[in-house]
Amino acid sequence: MDRRSFITKAGLATGAAAASTALAAPAIAQAAKDMVVVATWPRDFPGLGTGAQRLAARIEELSQGSIKVQYFAAGERVGAFDSFDAVASGNAQAYHAADYYWKGKHPGWAYYTAVPFGFIYAEINAWIRFMGGQELWDELADGFGLKCFSAGNTGVQMGGWFNKEIETPDDLKGLKMRIPGLGGDVMAKLGASPVSLPGGQIYENLVSGAIDATEWVGPWNDYFLKFYEAAKFYYYPGMHEPASMLSFGVNKSWYSGLTKFEQTVIEAACAEENNNMMAEYNANNAGFLRRLKEEHGVQVKRFSEEVYDAFGEAANEVFEETRQHSELAGKIHESFVKARAEVGSWMNLSDVPFLLERNRALGI
Amino acid sequence: MDRRSFITKAGLATGAAAASTALAAPAIAQAAKDMVVVATWPRDFPGLGTGAQRLAARIEELSQGSIKVQYFAAGERVGAFDSFDAVASGNAQAYHAADYYWKGKHPGWAYYTAVPFGFIYAEINAWIRFMGGQELWDELADGFGLKCFSAGNTGVQMGGWFNKEIETPDDLKGLKMRIPGLGGDVMAKLGASPVSLPGGQIYENLVSGAIDATEWVGPWNDYFLKFYEAAKFYYYPGMHEPASMLSFGVNKSWYSGLTKFEQTVIEAACAEENNNMMAEYNANNAGFLRRLKEEHGVQVKRFSEEVYDAFGEAANEVFEETRQHSELAGKIHESFVKARAEVGSWMNLSDVPFLLERNRALGI
Repeated sequence: MDRRSFITKAGLATGAAAASTALAAPAIAQAAKDMVVVATWPRDFPGLGTGAQRLAARIEELSQGSIKVQYFAAGERVGAFDSFDAVASGNAQAYHAADYYWKGKHPGWAYYTAVPFGFIYAEINAWIRFMGGQELWDELADGFGLKCFSAGNTGVQMGGWFNKEIETPDDLKGLKMRIPGLGGDVMAKLGASPVSLPGGQIYENLVSGAIDATEWVGPWNDYFLKFYEAAKFYYYPGMHEPASMLSFGVNKSWYSGLTKFEQTVIEAACAEENNNMMAEYNANNAGFLRRLKEEHGVQVKRFSEEVYDAFGEAANEVFEETRQHSELAGKIHESFVKARAEVGSWMNLSDVPFLLERNRALGI
Repeated sequence: MDRRSFITKAGLATGAAAASTALAAPAIAQAAKDMVVVATWPRDFPGLGTGAQRLAARIEELSQGSIKVQYFAAGERVGAFDSFDAVASGNAQAYHAADYYWKGKHPGWAYYTAVPFGFIYAEINAWIRFMGGQELWDELADGFGLKCFSAGNTGVQMGGWFNKEIETPDDLKGLKMRIPGLGGDVMAKLGASPVSLPGGQIYENLVSGAIDATEWVGPWNDYFLKFYEAAKFYYYPGMHEPASMLSFGVNKSWYSGLTKFEQTVIEAACAEENNNMMAEYNANNAGFLRRLKEEHGVQVKRFSEEVYDAFGEAANEVFEETRQHSELAGKIHESFVKARAEVGSWMNLSDVPFLLERNRALGI
């Protein structure tokens, strides 16, 4: 949006409100605010990238051009993992990312994307908005000069692609698997060798045999990466990222200089995208899973209870290390555990039994 | 909110934006657009009412005062069930309601709140936004001069309060139960006598024995209505309203006269509230369920598979009647069935097994 159309539109929309406000001419000096958004996703990457782009456009639209957004996909301005520093330093005004990328800076960040045995989408939304999650996120982010908003979700991720069946925890021993974050730490506890690789390098490593297994996201995203050429067993449900929330992290100092209206625009646009991205993943996953099975002979397998119990014990050990990090990490962990038990117990009476009974009765 | 505080707040919120706009006196000719919102909920009713009020305030805030909202709870301007006609006729500009209230006008409306064996929250969002649900809603609403947006959700409702145990479908025979909509039709197929009563009259009818059972919403809302004084058995999961979506229905002609910016404000604010109200219900239900059990000795019971199968067969019969109504009703039903099978099959591999395994492993 150019400056002229901004002034015109702002004039139209605010005319009525402005009618109650006397203005001297010098007041027009206030220019649109530039907002450079750096994302950790490739341009047009389905879901994560297209959702981040939709959000960036929405902020400009809802602000009536008082915020001018320039969106840069990963590598277009800074590398994906440099987004945090770019925003914290003020070289960019916001990132769209998975906050667990920053867990090396503070383990609390992991809780604001997904942790093993963590929240599903409905649960993390309840925690963030009404059970203290946002307040602790604010405390964490403030220490780095940031203010963060939930701004998208992939939902429950698949457990990953394996070149052999995983029937007992012993089958994980010695497995070289691409799985980042705390999920990787859980795998390491069980004797696997977790490695971290960006999305674009997974395929070649899997095909060459440098790794035996990988997780990525879910059917919609995984379909295009062709992992099935080297690993036919596609396991569910993922324990490592039960609902990966995406974050819109804004430079706090810049954010504080916005008008209340502009701040509200960012908050509302992020909430809208949080709602919409999840809907888009849920709308697409089933169809792409069917295509993976029908077109490529992928075998969909469920982790056994025995394997899941082993994941659970290992996850507890991993959490123990995390919560010892600092008082804030401990507070975040306690808040997470309390909300998980609380909303999780409600899921036992609502979504889960309803879906089980409905799908059984209807043969879905 | 009274008119004086409304004007003050609008002035404050838009002051900063107004500062960027040079105004000659004639430019103020364009007046703010008045939007009368009529809701079907009592003022400050937890969740439904407070969410609708939050949405109304947000639209004004995001519009920078170019839309001036006056919010009326049920009965403050028109009766709850007169909201539709008030908006369709242009006497009000929008309602916040459950669209299944209007199923007498067209059975298609039922699908845009909840139908028996219908969608959970994650599923209906996918259908509305990315699987054709909104387009059919637009077609339906257009026939009544409306444009509707999803604007909140209660999540999976409880099956209801009963004064005796329901072990087999036979136990439903002769039961007088307050249960509106298609859920009531399902109960009737099984030999119960469904009645429709507004929330404020349920308690007295239950205590007097005029009815034997009632459904309402879930623990958070039901707690305050004291049904436990007359019916100790609280059944789950509800088959009748697996995720009641709320609707913001706008007079189409008025909506068409808004600027693109103002239309976007309404769309974004509704999506934000759709996200937030669900979070609030999920955050509150577990705690209030615990209080119902601990403070009032409520017995929480699960419907048996046998009862659920009977519900399922009866629901199919009810749907058969609905889809015969008209070509549009048939199209909506087919779209619903397709999306339910599609997203429902993905739920079998994601939210459901993850929650089952996680909660089992952690003892939640």
